[in-house]
Amino acid sequence: MSDLRELLADPDPRRALCALLQDFHARDWISGTGGGICGRADADSLWVAPTGVHKELVRPEEFFRISIEEGTVLDAPAGLEPSECAPIFRAIVRATGAGSVVHSHALSAVLAADHSGGGVLSISGFEMLKGLGVKNTATHEVAVIVNTERERDLTDAVATAVADERFAAAKCVVVADHGCYLWGRDVAEAKKHAEVYHWLFEALVARWPRS
Amino acid sequence: MSDLRELLADPDPRRALCALLQDFHARDWISGTGGGICGRADADSLWVAPTGVHKELVRPEEFFRISIEEGTVLDAPAGLEPSECAPIFRAIVRATGAGSVVHSHALSAVLAADHSGGGVLSISGFEMLKGLGVKNTATHEVAVIVNTERERDLTDAVATAVADERFAAAKCVVVADHGCYLWGRDVAEAKKHAEVYHWLFEALVARWPRS
Amino acid sequence: MSDLRELLADPDPRRALCALLQDFHARDWISGTGGGICGRADADSLWVAPTGVHKELVRPEEFFRISIEEGTVLDAPAGLEPSECAPIFRAIVRATGAGSVVHSHALSAVLAADHSGGGVLSISGFEMLKGLGVKNTATHEVAVIVNTERERDLTDAVATAVADERFAAAKCVVVADHGCYLWGRDVAEAKKHAEVYHWLFEALVARWPRS
Amino acid sequence: MSDLRELLADPDPRRALCALLQDFHARDWISGTGGGICGRADADSLWVAPTGVHKELVRPEEFFRISIEEGTVLDAPAGLEPSECAPIFRAIVRATGAGSVVHSHALSAVLAADHSGGGVLSISGFEMLKGLGVKNTATHEVAVIVNTERERDLTDAVATAVADERFAAAKCVVVADHGCYLWGRDVAEAKKHAEVYHWLFEALVARWPRS
Repeated sequence: MSDLRELLADPDPRRALCALLQDFHARDWISGTGGGICGRADADSLWVAPTGVHKELVRPEEFFRISIEEGTVLDAPAGLEPSECAPIFRAIVRATGAGSVVHSHALSAVLAADHSGGGVLSISGFEMLKGLGVKNTATHEVAVIVNTERERDLTDAVATAVADERFAAAKCVVVADHGCYLWGRDVAEAKKHAEVYHWLFEALVARWPRS
Repeated sequence: MSDLRELLADPDPRRALCALLQDFHARDWISGTGGGICGRADADSLWVAPTGVHKELVRPEEFFRISIEEGTVLDAPAGLEPSECAPIFRAIVRATGAGSVVHSHALSAVLAADHSGGGVLSISGFEMLKGLGVKNTATHEVAVIVNTERERDLTDAVATAVADERFAAAKCVVVADHGCYLWGRDVAEAKKHAEVYHWLFEALVARWPRS
Repeated sequence: MSDLRELLADPDPRRALCALLQDFHARDWISGTGGGICGRADADSLWVAPTGVHKELVRPEEFFRISIEEGTVLDAPAGLEPSECAPIFRAIVRATGAGSVVHSHALSAVLAADHSGGGVLSISGFEMLKGLGVKNTATHEVAVIVNTERERDLTDAVATAVADERFAAAKCVVVADHGCYLWGRDVAEAKKHAEVYHWLFEALVARWPRS
Repeated sequence: MSDLRELLADPDPRRALCALLQDFHARDWISGTGGGICGRADADSLWVAPTGVHKELVRPEEFFRISIEEGTVLDAPAGLEPSECAPIFRAIVRATGAGSVVHSHALSAVLAADHSGGGVLSISGFEMLKGLGVKNTATHEVAVIVNTERERDLTDAVATAVADERFAAAKCVVVADHGCYLWGRDVAEAKKHAEVYHWLFEALVARWPRS
């Protein structure tokens, strides 16, 4: 695991992003070519994984570089298309200043959303909340938005959720029937938040009684 | 994981099939010498794994080459027998043009079938459906057939299910109490569909209330 | 995984037994220094793992050679004690001619026993039964015996269960609150039966409704 | 796995502690930078993992050496802070003479605590208890303490629980909504007890009926 340590220290995040895609695939957080990830290339652009490929097999040279403001493709590997997540990644980065965003298709996120109400997933009573920079006595509220036919059509709802005062402490937006978007100030923090939120989703599902 | 990437790009699918057998064994989709896999040798024949051996330990030179139309064994490794799945694999390939078929013994497939009715597993309300080339608003119907004493006696029921208009969008036939057959146009797509269907089986089981 | 293939072909089973201990530990079938394994040294003696050590860290030179008939220790590594399972392993080998016996502490075996009645675990309705050389239409009955304070005090009950006509098709004896003993004619078949029985235990637990 | 065997035999425990952090992270017992571990540097001081970092990526040279009696930092790696667990680790080591303490954030510990009553988790009816040096006929009682906002504020309650006659056989204190602290006389025994207690937590959760 010292390898991942070195990759996380590399100013170019692409090899660390590939390592996380492999780890997340092994955990079933991304699978079947679904899910995605991005990291900052510089202040103005992101490295975004391609679409329609086995994400755990993506190589560093296959990331697209996309401008954060306009969405322009600045560097494009041959024969690939950028992830449909790109507009959502850009909206989250613009609103939060995140350095890395993860799009998970974990079943635990879908099941946690099943138990949410009124577009809000309320999480409380777990020490693990501290991993989000939140007190363990807090009620941590995460937005749950409705899924759409096209992934890019989620962009407005994600942007609205990220701007909502109620969710100011959240580093995650859950998409019902779909998964979640979560982020951190850099790739290492995105990894941390990915582990924390997926633990919390599993905990919520385990604590709720079955109907 | 760059290894699997290279194996999937090899025109000879046998090393990739071995890698998938190892991965599927680690996931408990094949175990106890059960399960199987095939890939195309050419337009007219398939490479089929042997029967009665630990599938995750199969080597590339141990695959049988079998003609798709007649089922003739064209190349046979010494001391082995071809999988009993071969007639089923051939029926699926003839009807769908698939380049690779996976036979899974996953518990999730068995449990999902427990909750199906009238020979149909209806799957809806999941973004993950897109991994099958289906809209996430669709109701995706998969045939569930009754198990038989001899594996080869499943062939007619599989062939009927694959030809059934209701299941035109499906890349899978579930066998109650047994597992499933699933396929893709090549080994990479079969891997993708394997991940998608097993995710969906687990999701269906998790969403259904227990009796 | 080609390594395990070569180890299973080695007439000396000790390296294969070490590999299985590592695999079974990763699957939580043995843990906390519990569980055990043996294989044949020759017609008259067994290689038995030591007691009180982390089983997944055992080395080939640390197995005890023990005579099947008398239980005499024929070869003893310095500073270790043979597993308390040795008398049970010997009883199973004498009665069944098994070439390898596995002692599992899997939670799934304990939970399956919770749902058994009258000292019998009845398993039916699973294709996976074929991995035991049983028809998938059979009702496969496995003895469930009561746990004892000392492991060696299980020996008589195991010997009785193995000699019982009702359990003639079984390659396993379940010990309530404890785990199971299972076997095969050689290490490869013991591995196969281990995978099959643990799959079946998990399936039974998943199918039974919760109280 | 022979590597871990050698690491456990090293008088300097730091490489073994790093290996366990990697193993425990893979098992989800520590995640999201949470959890921790310590081992003895000598009779008077402990090696304690740093806080706020991905524990599975910690390197041997990044442990703090802290005096058991006064809590003085004797060796400090640059740019890191010692774990907030340090006072709790010291309290456990002083009271029990433990050589290694593990702080787990496992979901199974949290869920087991949900089912406890009156500050006690009663565990009985499992062979696995023997891994704690306890008879399998015993009722093994483990203290469950209430979580606090600051981790160091758990110290008094942990010290009280460890000194409580009722819990004399326990090598673990559970913290509700949080996880547990568990220990052994050396790193190898702490590993054993970690495996045993987590197995027991999972078993208790599986046996309790859902509301």
